[in-house]
Amino acid sequence: MRIAAQSLTREAFAPFGDVIETDGSRHFPINEGTTERFHDLAPVDVSDEGGRPLINLFRAQPRSLPLAVRIMERHSLSSQAFVPLSQRPFLVLVAPPGETVRIEDLKAFVAQDGQGVSYRRGVWHHPLIALEVESDFLVIDRGGPGENLDETAFPAGEAELTY
Amino acid sequence: MRIAAQSLTREAFAPFGDVIETDGSRHFPINEGTTERFHDLAPVDVSDEGGRPLINLFRAQPRSLPLAVRIMERHSLSSQAFVPLSQRPFLVLVAPPGETVRIEDLKAFVAQDGQGVSYRRGVWHHPLIALEVESDFLVIDRGGPGENLDETAFPAGEAELTY
Repeated sequence: MRIAAQSLTREAFAPFGDVIETDGSRHFPINEGTTERFHDLAPVDVSDEGGRPLINLFRAQPRSLPLAVRIMERHSLSSQAFVPLSQRPFLVLVAPPGETVRIEDLKAFVAQDGQGVSYRRGVWHHPLIALEVESDFLVIDRGGPGENLDETAFPAGEAELTY
Repeated sequence: MRIAAQSLTREAFAPFGDVIETDGSRHFPINEGTTERFHDLAPVDVSDEGGRPLINLFRAQPRSLPLAVRIMERHSLSSQAFVPLSQRPFLVLVAPPGETVRIEDLKAFVAQDGQGVSYRRGVWHHPLIALEVESDFLVIDRGGPGENLDETAFPAGEAELTY
């Protein structure tokens, strides 16, 4: 099955989490009007079972397309937010929460123009899919006790991702 | 008094908080080796008195130099982290925690090459000082009950910041 990435919008991504972007966000001036604050762009859901928020940087190697989809992961205890530190596009591949991932439930999106995403707790997602060049992302996720990573694998050839 | 900004290093900034950068940070491969994770780059100290972490974007207008220093602020309940979404330099002006700011205790730094900063709780800092062009920053700070902003003002002409 071939999965084509669609434009990333809040509406289309709502079943999986939040789009981190300024367009359509609540904002107000601060610092005597010299700065505009785009406020509380995505929930940070990390505190259950003794968790705490972490600030990390992920440096991702670019993937070649079409990408053979072999693995998906989820974090059962927390959200995870990715904000690109470049204005380069990247791909997002997700599936709804649940014990398994069905190939036919996979949805793919193209993040553009600095859009970031926050995966809601339990949402299945593919590891980072940078394009063309090595790309840095700021990542807000969870540290602390508990098992917060599940992975599931697909047989080769079942699904590939295009753009 | 004229304050000249110095290079931003972890050592020099240690009394005020953390430098968010990959150089010298703990890192390890994830995602089958396709991504390097630079892990837990700065503490997120936001949970006291019912606080929660917020993800925000600050869009800062550039300041002209020398900058007349007229105001400093602090957050008594939380840290506040700034990561530039461009590779442009910006200035950081800080003073140690305490009831007041003494002009002679002000320290200024130039963040370069994607360096970010996290101000430790209670550290006095100047509102964002972007340079030359409008600049976006991802900001991790605190939402929730309690008064988390103090400001202090200086008479005109007492201090100016250069680069």
